[in-house]
Amino acid sequence: MSKLHNADFKNFDKRKRANFINSLSGFKGCNLIGTINSDNVENLAIISSAFHIGADPALIGLIFRPDSVPRDTLENIRNNNQCTLNHVNENIYKKAHQTSARYPKDISEFETCNLKAEYRDECKPPFVQESNIQSLLELVREVPIPENNTHLLIMKIKNVFLDESFIESDGSIDIEASGTITVSGLNNYHRTVKLEKLPYAKASSGKE
Amino acid sequence: MSKLHNADFKNFDKRKRANFINSLSGFKGCNLIGTINSDNVENLAIISSAFHIGADPALIGLIFRPDSVPRDTLENIRNNNQCTLNHVNENIYKKAHQTSARYPKDISEFETCNLKAEYRDECKPPFVQESNIQSLLELVREVPIPENNTHLLIMKIKNVFLDESFIESDGSIDIEASGTITVSGLNNYHRTVKLEKLPYAKASSGKE
Repeated sequence: MSKLHNADFKNFDKRKRANFINSLSGFKGCNLIGTINSDNVENLAIISSAFHIGADPALIGLIFRPDSVPRDTLENIRNNNQCTLNHVNENIYKKAHQTSARYPKDISEFETCNLKAEYRDECKPPFVQESNIQSLLELVREVPIPENNTHLLIMKIKNVFLDESFIESDGSIDIEASGTITVSGLNNYHRTVKLEKLPYAKASSGKE
Repeated sequence: MSKLHNADFKNFDKRKRANFINSLSGFKGCNLIGTINSDNVENLAIISSAFHIGADPALIGLIFRPDSVPRDTLENIRNNNQCTLNHVNENIYKKAHQTSARYPKDISEFETCNLKAEYRDECKPPFVQESNIQSLLELVREVPIPENNTHLLIMKIKNVFLDESFIESDGSIDIEASGTITVSGLNNYHRTVKLEKLPYAKASSGKE
């Protein structure tokens, strides 16, 4: 095994460092964030930084870079407190990736990347019709991270839309069966193959 | 598609709600956190809440529940500021899962779950020898999340240990080739199959 010290990857060029460091936390969730602004311009952005914070209250965290790709998304959430979180599946990952391009503010990535916006009930922002697991999130609080000027948005899960056949008897969602994929680094897309669902671990079963 | 409102899953029993909500952010990184306390008792805990915060400085976030499984880990990091982050692979996922059992404070999960602790250089906490991608993390700051009394630990990546053959020319790490797996919900383990590495998206390539 080789050792790379902080000083080594600090000296990588910017893109190389981003690729390297983005790989280190492991596989990541692959989601599309749907928002809308006050002029009713839709925005859609792929995000690999959605993460579980807690189940009760049901909270998800989103990390946003302030000066980079998802700025419209961040502004839209700040303005109307809502976004949709849509799992990316194998059928749409190329279109989902394309949303990471820098489109002008007045362009809807739904339209230009050929994904269908779906509006539901009282939810302001659009969902991605092609996604099989969709949630409506509402802003609870924004936490600035001054170490790198990113922003953590703590979001509450308001509604979830999915085919109930994906929900197992214990409440787990079979996200692999729903087609949800995962991402590594910045741009590597992977489908999954289930190894096993392991039972709740007990201390008595530690030694075999 | 069915709609589940917040009030619906709020009323699930605790375990069912945890399974359901933990599935909603998508696939998660699957890592083992190695720590050591001031009496040199090692601790090892599986964690699915490690997430990328930024590449420069190289930062990873960890979410800890305060009164639950990884309490020893949290205390150890608070005491000596360091932990190791070790990717879980297909060969060790069962042992890794077993670390989630509630062992007494004086028990080393390395020993009882049959994983080998490896000490390196000036790094205080032990690494997991069987892991193919290992990082040393140092505490930058703890951010309390009063909404559910969890704790976000912002960690700086100090050193990375891996076989350099996993590093691609653009800096990405081929974590699938290294055997790294992913987790969904609380206890579903999956290996991955690469679909594609997509090029940096440009606005001009949006319409085909």
